[in-house]
Amino acid sequence: MKLALAILGALSPVLAHSIWPVPTKYEGGNCTTAAASTQIVVGYTVSQLLANAVDRYNSLISKESFTPPADYNITKAPATDGSLSGLQISISNSDEALSLDTDESYTLDVPVDGQATLKANTVYGALRGIETYSQLIITYGGVKVVKDTPVHIEDSPVLKHRGILLDTSRNYFAVDDIKRTLDAMSYNKLNVFHWHIVDAQSWPVESKSHPELQEIGSYGPDMRYSYGDVQDIIQYGKERGIRIIPEFDMPGHTYIISESHPDLISCPNVQPNWANYAAEPPSGQFNIAKRAATDFAISIIDEYAALFTDNTFHLGGDEVNLNCWNDDPDVKNYLKAHPNATVQTLLTEFYTNVHDELAKLKKTGISWEETLFHTEYTPPKSTIIQAWIDAQSIPDTVAKGYRSIASPASAYYLDCGHGAWLSNFDGNSWCDPFKTWMHIYNFDPFANVTTEAQRKLVIGAEVALWAEQADWTTLDNYLWPRACAMAETAWSGKADSNGHVRTTAEVAQRLHDQRFRLVGRGIRAEPMQALWCARNPGMCLLPS
Amino acid sequence: MKLALAILGALSPVLAHSIWPVPTKYEGGNCTTAAASTQIVVGYTVSQLLANAVDRYNSLISKESFTPPADYNITKAPATDGSLSGLQISISNSDEALSLDTDESYTLDVPVDGQATLKANTVYGALRGIETYSQLIITYGGVKVVKDTPVHIEDSPVLKHRGILLDTSRNYFAVDDIKRTLDAMSYNKLNVFHWHIVDAQSWPVESKSHPELQEIGSYGPDMRYSYGDVQDIIQYGKERGIRIIPEFDMPGHTYIISESHPDLISCPNVQPNWANYAAEPPSGQFNIAKRAATDFAISIIDEYAALFTDNTFHLGGDEVNLNCWNDDPDVKNYLKAHPNATVQTLLTEFYTNVHDELAKLKKTGISWEETLFHTEYTPPKSTIIQAWIDAQSIPDTVAKGYRSIASPASAYYLDCGHGAWLSNFDGNSWCDPFKTWMHIYNFDPFANVTTEAQRKLVIGAEVALWAEQADWTTLDNYLWPRACAMAETAWSGKADSNGHVRTTAEVAQRLHDQRFRLVGRGIRAEPMQALWCARNPGMCLLPS
Repeated sequence: MKLALAILGALSPVLAHSIWPVPTKYEGGNCTTAAASTQIVVGYTVSQLLANAVDRYNSLISKESFTPPADYNITKAPATDGSLSGLQISISNSDEALSLDTDESYTLDVPVDGQATLKANTVYGALRGIETYSQLIITYGGVKVVKDTPVHIEDSPVLKHRGILLDTSRNYFAVDDIKRTLDAMSYNKLNVFHWHIVDAQSWPVESKSHPELQEIGSYGPDMRYSYGDVQDIIQYGKERGIRIIPEFDMPGHTYIISESHPDLISCPNVQPNWANYAAEPPSGQFNIAKRAATDFAISIIDEYAALFTDNTFHLGGDEVNLNCWNDDPDVKNYLKAHPNATVQTLLTEFYTNVHDELAKLKKTGISWEETLFHTEYTPPKSTIIQAWIDAQSIPDTVAKGYRSIASPASAYYLDCGHGAWLSNFDGNSWCDPFKTWMHIYNFDPFANVTTEAQRKLVIGAEVALWAEQADWTTLDNYLWPRACAMAETAWSGKADSNGHVRTTAEVAQRLHDQRFRLVGRGIRAEPMQALWCARNPGMCLLPS
Repeated sequence: MKLALAILGALSPVLAHSIWPVPTKYEGGNCTTAAASTQIVVGYTVSQLLANAVDRYNSLISKESFTPPADYNITKAPATDGSLSGLQISISNSDEALSLDTDESYTLDVPVDGQATLKANTVYGALRGIETYSQLIITYGGVKVVKDTPVHIEDSPVLKHRGILLDTSRNYFAVDDIKRTLDAMSYNKLNVFHWHIVDAQSWPVESKSHPELQEIGSYGPDMRYSYGDVQDIIQYGKERGIRIIPEFDMPGHTYIISESHPDLISCPNVQPNWANYAAEPPSGQFNIAKRAATDFAISIIDEYAALFTDNTFHLGGDEVNLNCWNDDPDVKNYLKAHPNATVQTLLTEFYTNVHDELAKLKKTGISWEETLFHTEYTPPKSTIIQAWIDAQSIPDTVAKGYRSIASPASAYYLDCGHGAWLSNFDGNSWCDPFKTWMHIYNFDPFANVTTEAQRKLVIGAEVALWAEQADWTTLDNYLWPRACAMAETAWSGKADSNGHVRTTAEVAQRLHDQRFRLVGRGIRAEPMQALWCARNPGMCLLPS
């Protein structure tokens, strides 16, 4: 029997069915292992975080009953060649620090018979491996099995920063919606929640230094994130290996501050001609001619750099509109009194002050690409630049020696394609069309990045959900399964170990699996196709 | 006091805030009436259906707490000039028959003080009036009031047929999802649920004459509509004044029948070159060379014309692909044996047979426009033609003397703009772009219909949700609030009583109200804009 198993269990590279994102290295046999016992255990209790994850997944796996949609007609448990007796985890380092450089690699072995083993350098690598383990367990006729055993997986991500941006200012998202999003992210090995927490429309986060910000600027007492909420979300993310990176966008997108501090904001809510001053209503930018405005910005950074524990901090810097300052009386007076000054030198001074403050606080700045490309300011070389206007901004950024996060609107903006939203405009979304999962999957964050040194500077990818047309009613649909497409290219890379660039036709069935898995786990992920297509692999393709 | 009220209560035409769709005739005063008592009563119990509606709305109104988003900062109850003592309903006819010609008109008066009155010719007119009454009641600081009293409303629809098409074949929708949709429809005075119940991908409805259809063709026992479910949905619709019109699409879109009756279907699921035979996979059409196929189609009509009680029946007839028959061996043999026959004469014979059967059953047929425009068949003049390919098909249809339902894909297809869905195609939706509520609102079903006689033949409008990319996870978001936009133009017309064509800028705030009302009533309607826009009327417009 042992011999038979050994022969049956010869490893060969096969398609890692049902696992999303696909492991970097996957080898499977041709046995099937009964998985009545799936209990995860850690040999030694060194990390409460890992212990919590083990509890969470033991509960999830015991409740989960996932059958791939294409196997809908398999209603009986298959014959098995052995039995799983759970998963033993070992980690070499119990440090729970989480940062851009955290090692997420892991090795997972599921034998034909006996105990599976998961080895990782960090607790976070272990989390990724546990997620993979959970995805290996499939249910047929009420019976859990692992297919294609023995399974050997060696896995680690291509990109260190794999994120989702959520805008909680245009519309509010409840803490539970954010937590559910963090859950779904962990099911896709995403590790950064870019919290675009404030913007022109509302200030939902508690400020202790300026409580008037949320008192006047939030949508209401029931639409605020208290310090406790933020700390809760940071901890919830950390438990899932997800960094919470806050964005306090400045100097633009700050109208809401004017409701409590009218003196600090230039061109506040100009109507009806807001379009001269901002990308969308309401217009308003920090008044860069006033030291008080810079001081205020610095006080915001001081407060929230302390509340948000990640060692990076997003300073925004997108869509600054010079007209706003050109037409501002204070700016005009200042320029009259200072003949060598210009709006650009004032802006440089503002950026210098706020980035210096971040440096003092030992935080790494993240900025939208305009800060690098559209101003006279030179950000510190440690600054991470987030590209959104153009995919070409990624190679352009790394060519300048900066690290880059890829978020091109043309591929990664999940809100696009929903039509215009200004009430009198019967037109299309500015970033039309809709970005399908295929379009997202086909995007390569490394496109046109040619040298190895520059490729190392491409550190991340982020899809973005701007919330002008989204709120809790549509959150899951907008994110899932499309964010899965980015998650796989960011974790697994565009190509397999043979250099073959994966096609959407090849991965579609696995993504169907992941979509239905997410639905089963309580995520309202939208369908990719008719169920008929999900059940009939390869039959919903455009003829070539 | 009485005199003061009379003066305060002088009627004048003002904007009917918050009521959706806007009443045809609305006059309001400038008083505010306390609405602690909103109890609806019917003077005499003549209609169980009306009595049920009264119970339903009494419960809804007592639970509802709706404040228009723009009034978010009104937290105290306003001063009132009188008190409402409920609503008294009278109807002139208790007949509960529901058809295309049902009178839905009503008159509603809410005085400054005392009892409101609702008069209607039919129970269904009363239902529409009760809905309006429920929308007049607004909550401020926990206190219900009616604003702008006295209110006098005379209301009736411009179009008799105001519908939503839901495709339950590509993906299944549970009975509760359909019922929730019927609820939401009633909140918008929509009166037709066009149930595109079967298609190529699945046959979710029970058949007693051919049980193999659902046994083999449904997605599973948990994704079927039993006779009881259908009867339940018909009754649920009727209680809300909504006709349930089934569509059994033929001769195309019938692949699923081939799974249980392979002999009846030509070109079943041709792969990979389905595109030669169908608009989408799987291909398959009734084999029009076989009398058995026509007999089968007739047996389907016989069965479901009995189950579905409405006096219309939709026979489909869209997207017939002649290649499917040109390449069919049976068709080829038949044409060889019958030198005078052609594929078109065979198709005409098929249509003649199925439409004759409908006529025998005293049902009015509804057909997609291809039946009229793209075949040699001449449908009976009583047939209602549903336009979808082109808006011009509406004037073309009525010019031929047929009645028309407007469902142009360019304006009314709610699934459009979500990208292509074939797994290997990184392209756009065939009917890109997304149809925004503004685009839907701007569409005029009467465009290019010039004579009064022809205008009378434009009887309806229907938005359509085809379900290749939709299921329960996205149902409400796709439908609402966009279907509201059609609902208002179909009920109230494009212009007010002064002939002024309403603009989307003018109605946006009322639609925000309706969207938030729907959310409060349990409908997951998507947001139109940032909450900031909903709270700040007129500030989210494109500068002219």
